[in-house]
Amino acid sequence: MSGERGLAVARFVVRVIYADTDQMGLAYYGNYLRWFEVGRTEMLRELGMSYRQVEEAGFRMPVLEARCRYLRPARYDDELVIETTLVHRGRASLRFEYRVLRRTDGELLANGQTAHCFLDAEGRAVRMPPFFVELLDRAIRG
Amino acid sequence: MSGERGLAVARFVVRVIYADTDQMGLAYYGNYLRWFEVGRTEMLRELGMSYRQVEEAGFRMPVLEARCRYLRPARYDDELVIETTLVHRGRASLRFEYRVLRRTDGELLANGQTAHCFLDAEGRAVRMPPFFVELLDRAIRG
Amino acid sequence: MSGERGLAVARFVVRVIYADTDQMGLAYYGNYLRWFEVGRTEMLRELGMSYRQVEEAGFRMPVLEARCRYLRPARYDDELVIETTLVHRGRASLRFEYRVLRRTDGELLANGQTAHCFLDAEGRAVRMPPFFVELLDRAIRG
Amino acid sequence: MSGERGLAVARFVVRVIYADTDQMGLAYYGNYLRWFEVGRTEMLRELGMSYRQVEEAGFRMPVLEARCRYLRPARYDDELVIETTLVHRGRASLRFEYRVLRRTDGELLANGQTAHCFLDAEGRAVRMPPFFVELLDRAIRG
Repeated sequence: MSGERGLAVARFVVRVIYADTDQMGLAYYGNYLRWFEVGRTEMLRELGMSYRQVEEAGFRMPVLEARCRYLRPARYDDELVIETTLVHRGRASLRFEYRVLRRTDGELLANGQTAHCFLDAEGRAVRMPPFFVELLDRAIRG
Repeated sequence: MSGERGLAVARFVVRVIYADTDQMGLAYYGNYLRWFEVGRTEMLRELGMSYRQVEEAGFRMPVLEARCRYLRPARYDDELVIETTLVHRGRASLRFEYRVLRRTDGELLANGQTAHCFLDAEGRAVRMPPFFVELLDRAIRG
Repeated sequence: MSGERGLAVARFVVRVIYADTDQMGLAYYGNYLRWFEVGRTEMLRELGMSYRQVEEAGFRMPVLEARCRYLRPARYDDELVIETTLVHRGRASLRFEYRVLRRTDGELLANGQTAHCFLDAEGRAVRMPPFFVELLDRAIRG
Repeated sequence: MSGERGLAVARFVVRVIYADTDQMGLAYYGNYLRWFEVGRTEMLRELGMSYRQVEEAGFRMPVLEARCRYLRPARYDDELVIETTLVHRGRASLRFEYRVLRRTDGELLANGQTAHCFLDAEGRAVRMPPFFVELLDRAIRG
């Protein structure tokens, strides 16, 4: 975790399983959004708070927008490094960037973004909750 | 809907999409459980009550056990007939059987079963709720 | 199928199943890419050629880029209209736009795009194959 | 890896992600078959040969039958221990058993089985290939 290419960066490794492949013999394009989820979840955990705890505190961070560019295919049994960067924090929003790299040679396979807002327990859009502001402050100062 | 091979039978057609395939060029084995879900859901709808309504009435019907035998592969873009049969109703349980047939030639590709219980809103196992008993009575008499 | 908002438009209905939901009680954000796949596949079928036939002719149309904006949640058992529009055809590429509408009231839940290229059987990027050019010409003139 | 409860046993940890949950707030029942895949794949890798290598050698091991009993729910963000046991080797078939345990307290959440045969590159059922027999012999003697 560090501030090299944004506010915070985290890396996590996933493996492409058979269920993820399609008959082109490649990872299905929709699965990258699953891996983006894994990436940002593990970033939060490294920052000191799991997304489960965010929900237990009465908040949710739904995805407002997602995009992915597919540069080179991921194949069955490949280990992928999901590199997640927190690139923007607003008063009521967050934006993450993702890079998906083949672990063996570091080749960049895909990149993407997701944008999120905060909802309270009643589903109303709210500002970033104070505990989350502190979490990010600590991480970025750290 | 009729009582030919059990208490009630329903048929529904799904199509194998690219996301469902794996690099063998076949439908991934785990997807059949999705199709079983579609089968029993559409049966309930035909019986006169959607599973959404079951939940809105404060009940859930989790799966206790599932099994599937894979006889012949389902391929990309195949239309599959999901034939769902209610084969057993107990005081507090249900059992469905499924047959997955290739639509073009009626070839049997897979068959399986799921067993379910009833939970109330607090997650306690309960008897089949009266409205559900009536639903089945009507269907079977009908 | 018509040319109202682009080169061609197709509509197809899918239903949100339990497997598609997450613990927010909403459709998981990655599933929209599955529905986009269904949308463009059914458009091709309406144009007169299934994607299976495209592959049998020795070509593939991988996704280069995908994006989705999530405006309002899709919920369990909702019927969704996937409206697919072919918005761009290049010499070697295609771009589709998608709108996901709640069927009961026509509410727009999400929109998105995918960009595609053509690969031959050896995986080389190629121009749009002649049979595909004709398919589009017929559809757009028609 | 050891022969305690069968011919060979392997353990692997997976985490329940948001994509795996459904609106009951639990892991969707079909996902266990994905985790079974992860379990047997990691067992093969520990035995000394990845399933990718099995396929590269010209063989496939499709699933003939799968079953799962759901004892207690797996929840979002739970870490699950997938314990895979090779319980039967025939001349042309294999059978694996799986136990899914909550990592924090070792609680058994589900168990299941899959049965497999061997196909050659042309898709014909064949005996277990010699390299695979040796792999198992070594593991069991080991």
